Amino acid sequence: MTELLLNHLGGRWVAGQGAGSPLFDPVLGDELVRVDATGLDLRAGFAFARDTGGAALRSLTYRQRAALLAAAVKVLQAHRADYEAIATANSGTVKSDSSVDIDGGIYTLSTYARMGEGLGDHRHLADGDAVRLAKDALFQGRHVLVPSRGLALFINAFNFPSWGLWEKAAPALLSGVPVVVKPATATAWLTQRMVRDVVDAGVLPPGALSVVCGSGAGLMDALEPFDVVSFTGSADTAALIRSHAAVTQRSVRVNIEADSVNGALLLPGEAPGGEAFDLLAREVAREMTQKSGQKCTAIRRVFVPEACYASAAEAIGARLARTPVGNPRNETVRMGALVSRAQLDSVRQGLARLKQQAETLHDGATHALVDADPARACCVGPTLLGTRSADGSDASGLVHDVEVFGPVATLVPYRDAAHAMALVARGQGSLVASVFGSDPRALADASIELAALHGRVHVVSPDVAAMHTGHGNVMPQSVHGGPGRAGGGEELGGLRALNFYHRRAAVQASTAVLDHLGRAGDRT
Amino acid sequence: MTELLLNHLGGRWVAGQGAGSPLFDPVLGDELVRVDATGLDLRAGFAFARDTGGAALRSLTYRQRAALLAAAVKVLQAHRADYEAIATANSGTVKSDSSVDIDGGIYTLSTYARMGEGLGDHRHLADGDAVRLAKDALFQGRHVLVPSRGLALFINAFNFPSWGLWEKAAPALLSGVPVVVKPATATAWLTQRMVRDVVDAGVLPPGALSVVCGSGAGLMDALEPFDVVSFTGSADTAALIRSHAAVTQRSVRVNIEADSVNGALLLPGEAPGGEAFDLLAREVAREMTQKSGQKCTAIRRVFVPEACYASAAEAIGARLARTPVGNPRNETVRMGALVSRAQLDSVRQGLARLKQQAETLHDGATHALVDADPARACCVGPTLLGTRSADGSDASGLVHDVEVFGPVATLVPYRDAAHAMALVARGQGSLVASVFGSDPRALADASIELAALHGRVHVVSPDVAAMHTGHGNVMPQSVHGGPGRAGGGEELGGLRALNFYHRRAAVQASTAVLDHLGRAGDRT
Repeated sequence: MTELLLNHLGGRWVAGQGAGSPLFDPVLGDELVRVDATGLDLRAGFAFARDTGGAALRSLTYRQRAALLAAAVKVLQAHRADYEAIATANSGTVKSDSSVDIDGGIYTLSTYARMGEGLGDHRHLADGDAVRLAKDALFQGRHVLVPSRGLALFINAFNFPSWGLWEKAAPALLSGVPVVVKPATATAWLTQRMVRDVVDAGVLPPGALSVVCGSGAGLMDALEPFDVVSFTGSADTAALIRSHAAVTQRSVRVNIEADSVNGALLLPGEAPGGEAFDLLAREVAREMTQKSGQKCTAIRRVFVPEACYASAAEAIGARLARTPVGNPRNETVRMGALVSRAQLDSVRQGLARLKQQAETLHDGATHALVDADPARACCVGPTLLGTRSADGSDASGLVHDVEVFGPVATLVPYRDAAHAMALVARGQGSLVASVFGSDPRALADASIELAALHGRVHVVSPDVAAMHTGHGNVMPQSVHGGPGRAGGGEELGGLRALNFYHRRAAVQASTAVLDHLGRAGDRT
Repeated sequence: MTELLLNHLGGRWVAGQGAGSPLFDPVLGDELVRVDATGLDLRAGFAFARDTGGAALRSLTYRQRAALLAAAVKVLQAHRADYEAIATANSGTVKSDSSVDIDGGIYTLSTYARMGEGLGDHRHLADGDAVRLAKDALFQGRHVLVPSRGLALFINAFNFPSWGLWEKAAPALLSGVPVVVKPATATAWLTQRMVRDVVDAGVLPPGALSVVCGSGAGLMDALEPFDVVSFTGSADTAALIRSHAAVTQRSVRVNIEADSVNGALLLPGEAPGGEAFDLLAREVAREMTQKSGQKCTAIRRVFVPEACYASAAEAIGARLARTPVGNPRNETVRMGALVSRAQLDSVRQGLARLKQQAETLHDGATHALVDADPARACCVGPTLLGTRSADGSDASGLVHDVEVFGPVATLVPYRDAAHAMALVARGQGSLVASVFGSDPRALADASIELAALHGRVHVVSPDVAAMHTGHGNVMPQSVHGGPGRAGGGEELGGLRALNFYHRRAAVQASTAVLDHLGRAGDRT
């Protein structure tokens, strides 16, 4: 029997009472560890988090909590080699992809440690200036943000076991709100290990950080009115969470980051072989293959002028053809595995659905796996599809609806700018769009139009070719989330992320009272 | 047959196909008008609002839209006498209470007209400064707020047919988002008339403002991903709205303002007969009787030091005894009717429930009705209850759970500051708390503690006795809404209200591109 990972709840390490669910190596097929949450006293554990962890965190100032984050960063950096080994084994990712998750998480945590220090020794935040409420200037109103008096439950996705934890935990802990994380089972190991290291190092107050591995049953039932829940994953599970009585009846605040069908857009007038064209081809190939396309932000639809369709297919396909796929332990491999057999099946099914509509421009099946047994390894080569008829409402609209969560994208030609925007809008709201071009004004105009449908617009022009941060890379300074199908949530965005973990209130009073509220930290 | 009010949908006035539901005079019992929404083509009407009304509004700048609000203000002011007549007949309110609704709505609209003008000739808003995303300063990110490309559906409560419309419509229209309002049937007349006057005056683009009177069936079904819905009313209906597929599956953004059990708190150390004590007694009596206690923000629980219990009962009771109740057409009357027989029954039932726990300190039944037939008029006298045992979990906790939506409040004595805060917190989150005292530091400390549980904290000290804006009065400059039981929503708060009707997006680009985004309006 493999090791049964412990849960951390109620300030102690506790084993589930069941047999446990196994986690596997998606390349070799070996069982690695087991997780189980059967029989945990979730209500008592959550109460401990709120009453002990929350009270301890709220007694600190923002600057002191920022110091806790900085201490956690040091702990994580000291154990980085362990995390890379776990990622290789459990996520099947090549080193650079493991780094996106591990170092991305640590970078985000350190960014909030730095920003938090700037908030100073205060326990609430100012929100705007005081405004006069009466003719006499003595009676005024101002707004404050105070930490929520509940816990933050994170129900996370399998693709970012490190970053997915820390990008949420950093603003929560900085806000004084204790965290309970429920990682996706397939890759729960890395999350559990990071929590274990930080908890065991004693850098956080007891109850500030808990982890429950395995089934999520009962977690939502244990939430109370001042708790918040942040979910990353499928639209179906998102709907279940939103429908739960904790949300509908107890007003538990929800943040959802669901799947989306993100697009990349080459502006009208850009020519095959031009700089913007080449930047698009490079970025699409990179986004399709990084983490085997298992990123919520990855490019799924590629919109190009009709005249560029064939050349774009060729340029992207040529880059994909040069991407060796297989065992991440082999140094020639640039794209590892999908995380599980379930995901492999899901990608194959999605691909089959899209092929009802689309032609195959580059076939992933042509990639021989390096150092991996095709019968065992959850590896697939990258596939570029294409369709000239993406306007219809039935099968021809599939490309806008079906997110294949793997190394798959579809090339879609458009007639003119209006047609391009109409096609993008068929995605019903996405996390991110990237736009490629060389005319600053045209790029700016497109950005504002895309902003209504996306949480982030990433603009690539030749002048920033060497420095832009990437379509799918989520910077802690920028908001992450998107409207409509993408779930309507909002994470990160610098100190904007703290809003979710605070309650805003207006205080209407004599200026003699308002003066005593103290100089609170300002978010701007 | 009384007049059947028309709905305005799809840019035209249209009658429901059913017999209609009658609206009554709650004092005289007469049928006034009828409303009906049977057979309306909601999908087509909503599409017209989005595609025609929304597009027209979005083509304008903030300054131009602010001018539309100012024009609507002039229309409403010109017809003010009609509105007062409708309020008297349909809401049974005295003139000063009708004014809270009518003039409160017009004032809020004019406040947004003024604030909107300051946003200038822009079509999107800046959100914070640009931040560097790479070592090279050429690549940066900034955030923008762009108008939501959907409509705003308002499902409103019976107690504020005017203010409830305009406090939501003002920020929506200013944001470039078309409005569909579904007023509560009992008092839909005033809402419908105001929409009629503004639409017929032609000051808004076609499709910008619609009204559906009668049943709300099908409204939620017609919502699409970029629409928003704002609901004011009961927690039960709120749960239904939150559970609807439009919200759970299509990410329609929701704002809920549900009932709450707001408190007023006299700080420890304040003595009977002192200035703060007198201010509390005055404010409680005013809040209990204004609009017959039919305000979401009204004081329901009154917390005083144990030593003040008897004297507070006496002081508040004496003020209540001096409040003539009855027909609002009689000039000696200071408190009119409840809006309907259903509300009368509900208040009587709620009062009976609370009396399981509480003693009666001032009995509303002692008030003889002025100029009104007790068998016909929906009038009740104000009742002050009291309980010395509000700590328990069964019947003794009723005072924290049962909101009687009428002229009823309960006096609760506390032992010390910690006990007071624990009792307040039993409300599970409220719209507003008021706190009365004379020590600025103690008032400031209490405000921050109360801020975690309330959307607004109203502080009354002797220096602002003559100018404070009132516990239950919602100022457009301050946020309105509250956590937990209060629904977790947020309205108003000056330009903060515009957030709900905008989408925030990060734009990551070369500074050459960001420069072309233009100097957008700034909310701060």
